[in-house]
Amino acid sequence: MDTRLLIVSASPRPYGNSRIVARFASKIARDIENVHTYEVDLFDYRIEPCIGCVSDGVRMCKLPCVLGDDMDKLYELVAESDGIIFVSPIYWYNVPGPLKNFIDRLTVFENAIFIEGRSRMEGKVAGFIVVGNDTGGIAVIQNLMVTMNSMGAAIPPWALAYHESDDNPIENENFILDVANVIRGVVLMVKALKGLEKPKYWYRVDKEYKEKVMDAAEHAYREVIDNLTYEQSNR
Amino acid sequence: MDTRLLIVSASPRPYGNSRIVARFASKIARDIENVHTYEVDLFDYRIEPCIGCVSDGVRMCKLPCVLGDDMDKLYELVAESDGIIFVSPIYWYNVPGPLKNFIDRLTVFENAIFIEGRSRMEGKVAGFIVVGNDTGGIAVIQNLMVTMNSMGAAIPPWALAYHESDDNPIENENFILDVANVIRGVVLMVKALKGLEKPKYWYRVDKEYKEKVMDAAEHAYREVIDNLTYEQSNR
Amino acid sequence: MDTRLLIVSASPRPYGNSRIVARFASKIARDIENVHTYEVDLFDYRIEPCIGCVSDGVRMCKLPCVLGDDMDKLYELVAESDGIIFVSPIYWYNVPGPLKNFIDRLTVFENAIFIEGRSRMEGKVAGFIVVGNDTGGIAVIQNLMVTMNSMGAAIPPWALAYHESDDNPIENENFILDVANVIRGVVLMVKALKGLEKPKYWYRVDKEYKEKVMDAAEHAYREVIDNLTYEQSNR
Amino acid sequence: MDTRLLIVSASPRPYGNSRIVARFASKIARDIENVHTYEVDLFDYRIEPCIGCVSDGVRMCKLPCVLGDDMDKLYELVAESDGIIFVSPIYWYNVPGPLKNFIDRLTVFENAIFIEGRSRMEGKVAGFIVVGNDTGGIAVIQNLMVTMNSMGAAIPPWALAYHESDDNPIENENFILDVANVIRGVVLMVKALKGLEKPKYWYRVDKEYKEKVMDAAEHAYREVIDNLTYEQSNR
Repeated sequence: MDTRLLIVSASPRPYGNSRIVARFASKIARDIENVHTYEVDLFDYRIEPCIGCVSDGVRMCKLPCVLGDDMDKLYELVAESDGIIFVSPIYWYNVPGPLKNFIDRLTVFENAIFIEGRSRMEGKVAGFIVVGNDTGGIAVIQNLMVTMNSMGAAIPPWALAYHESDDNPIENENFILDVANVIRGVVLMVKALKGLEKPKYWYRVDKEYKEKVMDAAEHAYREVIDNLTYEQSNR
Repeated sequence: MDTRLLIVSASPRPYGNSRIVARFASKIARDIENVHTYEVDLFDYRIEPCIGCVSDGVRMCKLPCVLGDDMDKLYELVAESDGIIFVSPIYWYNVPGPLKNFIDRLTVFENAIFIEGRSRMEGKVAGFIVVGNDTGGIAVIQNLMVTMNSMGAAIPPWALAYHESDDNPIENENFILDVANVIRGVVLMVKALKGLEKPKYWYRVDKEYKEKVMDAAEHAYREVIDNLTYEQSNR
Repeated sequence: MDTRLLIVSASPRPYGNSRIVARFASKIARDIENVHTYEVDLFDYRIEPCIGCVSDGVRMCKLPCVLGDDMDKLYELVAESDGIIFVSPIYWYNVPGPLKNFIDRLTVFENAIFIEGRSRMEGKVAGFIVVGNDTGGIAVIQNLMVTMNSMGAAIPPWALAYHESDDNPIENENFILDVANVIRGVVLMVKALKGLEKPKYWYRVDKEYKEKVMDAAEHAYREVIDNLTYEQSNR
Repeated sequence: MDTRLLIVSASPRPYGNSRIVARFASKIARDIENVHTYEVDLFDYRIEPCIGCVSDGVRMCKLPCVLGDDMDKLYELVAESDGIIFVSPIYWYNVPGPLKNFIDRLTVFENAIFIEGRSRMEGKVAGFIVVGNDTGGIAVIQNLMVTMNSMGAAIPPWALAYHESDDNPIENENFILDVANVIRGVVLMVKALKGLEKPKYWYRVDKEYKEKVMDAAEHAYREVIDNLTYEQSNR
């Protein structure tokens, strides 16, 4: 009955802001919300583009997907998760190509409606975090949100956070607090839908919480930076 | 502890497809989901445009709204509702002006964060139904969905339905079933968030349900048509 | 053969950022591009919501519009203009209600296709400037852009500018330069489509231009501020 | 001084509707508008995802792109074209992954602003055609339109066409006519911006034109079908 979150980021650069934020989101989930997390970056996986079998016939799109690539591992991770947190950079007011390929490939999970009677995304809970140098965050989020909802995912209150600036996202307090509340909301909703806990309130902003959150962000940031230094000194 | 749904439509014509669909949505809610409904059409209310007090200072936007118009009645109805179902026509890939005014005026409910510590929309559940002669439904829905979510509303799985055609929406079986499942999802989530009931599954499509739903649609359609005939014969 | 631009803003507050930017856009148009401008703010006009006659029959929506309100004056101004510059605040990732009413009411211009054989918006040139305290600019602009294009308007390169911050927009150099280039692009395209001038290049960023643009912005800002002071001292 | 159009489609299936429509768009361009066309389908090219060098430093993203893949050929084709017509399927209210990769990779053309003083997309003319089994066309088009415009492309009146149905697009007369007018608009605007021709009117719908267009569509459809039969009989 443990809650499991999958953190899906799509950042080409291991020291990029999206990865730092994904790391931070994981830390919040584990240390503050006490749930299991699995963090993947799609740039580490070979995900072939969806070839649209469903257009040949609605029953043609079923598991195992004919493409047989790294997506098989990701299908397992999605299947095991109660909630999915997307952490995406903003590329031309949209997700980057690899995240779009990931979403296109989730069609087989949604299309389980026609194979198994029910979408494999149904009842999972989704949250959305975007990070860019410039604007476009809402355009990205609204596409992800309506897509996940159309696949059967539930969306908790305040399921969105955006940082649209060159500045270090870790120094953007409002963003960090929004990220923490995306995680909080997803976890609360997972529990509510499992009948484990009735949410009393959603967005949390008290001083104690804020301090814990900022602290987790700081640690996550150092972890990424230290890790990079370590990797560089071992090359 | 009764569940209350507010059905908000925005149709200039009393015999328009949006109104027929709003009526049908109410009927489903009452007769199949057994919840209380209140149905309003924004074209029957005088809703002045938001004048953006919040830009003068975040604490300037608070209840009672300085505009003092028919929105006061609508604020009451929103406050009393557990869930809100939007039934909107598609005007230029967007909501019509009066629905946009309604949403802009809800700012004072969301801005309660800064006045009362919590958004008055937080934890309400929202669903989205759009009706047009032509395409654009997803563009409308994604704006409404991300907006309601940003105000604090929860979105249940499959919270969207669209009919994009000149044809009678009552004859579009997939749409009717989607509408019914928007209502179903909103009610299930209201109950889950109140800790009353744990949802077993979401999208319902079995034969018995389909028959009840199509029957309710048919009745709602006749009600609107008969009512129009009655009104015309009494002019 | 003079070029005429209509600057349409939609700002509830006479001292609001959208109005300052609209004033600045007009100044650029007149002083740098040497074209005629007419500046309106929709909040100064009574614009009833579109009642969707076109849904009763495609030939039902024709001029003069049955609503007979202040939109009649705006129809004249649109008809006389070669280009339209929208200056909109960002309200919930969308235009405010009064601007949506204005757009909905332009349907009768577009619907001239079915009455006169051609859209009255065809070949006009449009540009888009949005101003908000927070994100959502692209979501607004993409709706306006695809809408104007669907009515028959041409869109020049770089037809968009956004300022998404509490800071004074006049101090946002990139934004000011983008605004100037929206005006420049619209004027260049009007001339190209009239066969008057072949554009050599579009986005302009040289030092001389930048200085003129920043200077015009500064003047426009002072004009609005001085005017407000004057109005207040005369109350 | 010849006009060159690049038709970019992104269809995984060689017999898919997007490819048929791309073929038809090419035929219209050649036979009715008398311009050169080059037709590519992105699924035939290996296009690696953009790795975001520009985030490391604005001058890091320059030609030749470090990725050195099939995109090099596509860069040449884009560079040589006056206009680009996108023909995209609708995948989750968005473009499919490979088209998103293509767009992300065009960043280096846009970023030429910082390297060469001018975007390599500036002044090119773009048109947008989408084909899906279900809704979402406007959501796709508005993202493509605002993206191309932000890179410096001009958008002619009526630069959009959508077919959202399982039915054969060749039998959707309104769509076919819209597609033809996308091509017509792009060509007219290329000529206007080169100072070659002043457009008299844009959307064309007269009987003679309609017949030529429907005829071209029919031929294109047969070509694709015959080609498939030929390929299958030679396997």
